Amino acid sequence: MIEANNPQRRSFIEIPEGSDFPIQNLPFGIFSVGDDEQRAGVALGEKVIDLSALFELGYLTSVDENVFSYPMLNPFIAMGNATTRAVRNELALLFDAENPKLREQKSDLEKVLFNQADVTMHLPVEIGDYTDFYSSKEHATNVGTMFRDPNNALLPNWLHLPVGYHGRASSIIPSGIPVRRPKGQSLPAEAENPVFGPSKLMDFELEMAFISHQGKDLGERISISEAEDYIFGMVIFNDWSARDLQKWEYVPLGPFLAKNFASSISPWIVTLDALEPYRVDGPVQEPTPLPYLQFEGKRSFDINLEAYITPENSVASKVCHSNFKFMYWNMAQQLAHHTINGCNINAGDFFASGTISGPTPDSYGSMLELAWKGTKPLKLDDGSERKFIQDHDTVTMKAYCDNGSVRMGFGEVSSKVLPAT
Amino acid sequence: MIEANNPQRRSFIEIPEGSDFPIQNLPFGIFSVGDDEQRAGVALGEKVIDLSALFELGYLTSVDENVFSYPMLNPFIAMGNATTRAVRNELALLFDAENPKLREQKSDLEKVLFNQADVTMHLPVEIGDYTDFYSSKEHATNVGTMFRDPNNALLPNWLHLPVGYHGRASSIIPSGIPVRRPKGQSLPAEAENPVFGPSKLMDFELEMAFISHQGKDLGERISISEAEDYIFGMVIFNDWSARDLQKWEYVPLGPFLAKNFASSISPWIVTLDALEPYRVDGPVQEPTPLPYLQFEGKRSFDINLEAYITPENSVASKVCHSNFKFMYWNMAQQLAHHTINGCNINAGDFFASGTISGPTPDSYGSMLELAWKGTKPLKLDDGSERKFIQDHDTVTMKAYCDNGSVRMGFGEVSSKVLPAT
Repeated sequence: MIEANNPQRRSFIEIPEGSDFPIQNLPFGIFSVGDDEQRAGVALGEKVIDLSALFELGYLTSVDENVFSYPMLNPFIAMGNATTRAVRNELALLFDAENPKLREQKSDLEKVLFNQADVTMHLPVEIGDYTDFYSSKEHATNVGTMFRDPNNALLPNWLHLPVGYHGRASSIIPSGIPVRRPKGQSLPAEAENPVFGPSKLMDFELEMAFISHQGKDLGERISISEAEDYIFGMVIFNDWSARDLQKWEYVPLGPFLAKNFASSISPWIVTLDALEPYRVDGPVQEPTPLPYLQFEGKRSFDINLEAYITPENSVASKVCHSNFKFMYWNMAQQLAHHTINGCNINAGDFFASGTISGPTPDSYGSMLELAWKGTKPLKLDDGSERKFIQDHDTVTMKAYCDNGSVRMGFGEVSSKVLPAT
Repeated sequence: MIEANNPQRRSFIEIPEGSDFPIQNLPFGIFSVGDDEQRAGVALGEKVIDLSALFELGYLTSVDENVFSYPMLNPFIAMGNATTRAVRNELALLFDAENPKLREQKSDLEKVLFNQADVTMHLPVEIGDYTDFYSSKEHATNVGTMFRDPNNALLPNWLHLPVGYHGRASSIIPSGIPVRRPKGQSLPAEAENPVFGPSKLMDFELEMAFISHQGKDLGERISISEAEDYIFGMVIFNDWSARDLQKWEYVPLGPFLAKNFASSISPWIVTLDALEPYRVDGPVQEPTPLPYLQFEGKRSFDINLEAYITPENSVASKVCHSNFKFMYWNMAQQLAHHTINGCNINAGDFFASGTISGPTPDSYGSMLELAWKGTKPLKLDDGSERKFIQDHDTVTMKAYCDNGSVRMGFGEVSSKVLPAT
């Protein structure tokens, strides 16, 4: 067992009941306080541990230099999973209730602990490349049923490979930054020519994403058995989508402006190590994939996913409850596929799952599916209805794991939609 | 007129007849000598001017700090086109045959000049995001004719917007680096299930690409009238493609592993300023595009493009002669479209044209079109035939402008294909 995952461990830091950040989690992020420099931190209960300060005080010995003082986690992540695991284990021991080493150094504690309520969270990594997969069978089936043929909803390649495409890294933003409704071209029903204006069909997509360690050189492959060694951790991902723009532009080369106006992520990277206790089997894969996609063991994770819509000055309504375990293609398969042609990956690269829909209508991960192309409007708790996302709505996504022994979570990604300018 | 573009100017550096790098060009790149650090340079005749050394010696006054000492041009490009233009103008005056200032300082000249034959060229920029357009009407028509319907070769959106998609930045490599034939899935004719193996249909795509200055904030747009202010310069781009992998994987989200195993670029960025004398009108656009895509003036450029295949231990055969001016959608339209939804761009971002095919069969920019899906094999000068690219073939692309007054070029991008491992 990974030392930091010990379910018995308690911290001397108070952890509120139901917190996403017990001592068994210890997710990494980038924060700042006031006008201070951005640096690396770890969430514990309602606190942020300042890793840069902790290193300078001599408490972290798994690294030789202060890789925590940079405004992004890439230099730390690039050191590889042996190092990132060692640092997380050190933190678990250091904040263990039984360990007096740091506990009794009140002045040091004051230097390394901040209230989460007092800090600003930033993008945790500088994302070199971003790939979006399309790995939920239920989502692909729903989309195929709506837009193509219900009897042939899945395209011929879908069951043979994890379909994916490249996305825009520059417009990935952290939780809390409002998102502007995009303008663009769309083709009205029955029209011959496109029109220009604000998107009328703005949507969220409930996804998770993983962030990679440094990969191999161009031309080399990461096999499926070693793939998880190259995965540092995961975040929640809202892949904002303008459905009307998408429908008009996406043939034949895929979505472009319908997606790249903004994508929002939760700020704390939960390590794959921390997720170890939540491994489960994924869906049965039939037909059997080609050998390079065949895997052993449990490669899926039981992560509850929720999406909420909060109209302005109103209450939050839960509109979706899905689970990461519904994904047909697992992360190891995605990464093995991505590099089978020799494509290189770098530390801090970003790989999203695609919308994660489950088998039941309340588990669909987008408004497109939840309101079934606008034909079944969702009733919110305040009585209003939604076919898609309206201006001033806030969309919030949460994710958590609970195996009966330890509950931990990802925090949230929450962003308000502003009207087009 | 931009000072550096003066067609009368001569340099005290010898420029061989037909050189791509007369003093009117002055393209920027990143070079190293032996084990030295990478830094910024400019090509002049057969020499490289070491900008970092030139700055340290006090000859460059348009910038306050040595932005040329970095291993990529991003910090320089990020200063904007007023600065990059000023530096190029300074260089033109400094190396003018009539100017004794540097000409007479032999020991300084020795410090700042290297033979191109003695240096290693690197990627000129760290590419944050890479977008590939699909802007040649002839190419889109050829592909549509081959794979869909000759009577409806262009998809409905094609004449209304510059179709584009996101590509992989990590696998963009400079000229000279060999490219490994990728392995992957493809669906043989008549087969029900895909097979795995080396791509059998490896192809080049003859493209140009532009590199951007720092853009605006997320949520803001770059209008078409200001778009060219955000374009630093251009390179030649070989968008390697594995046609069999592409055909099987690309529906519905676009090309992925068929492209991201490698893309090769020429190392010298020819500035948009240097290309000013080669402006021409582009193709007539009918129907008239939406207002945000309407432009004034000449926004196309007369750039001759050539592709060569050199079998191992054999001679080079020219297989294609195309021209950048054939592009239906110009760069200003591409950039205005890319940001119309608020998508942000950064200094050093990369925007490729898509395959540039002309109206005649010898101007098609890919083997797919030149050999018409393998039905019309090309005869090379050594008597061998090609339907696609074979192992150990070297593909070389060149680009040059000649308006009768000044001839200048881009150098070349040349890469050998290695067998799959």
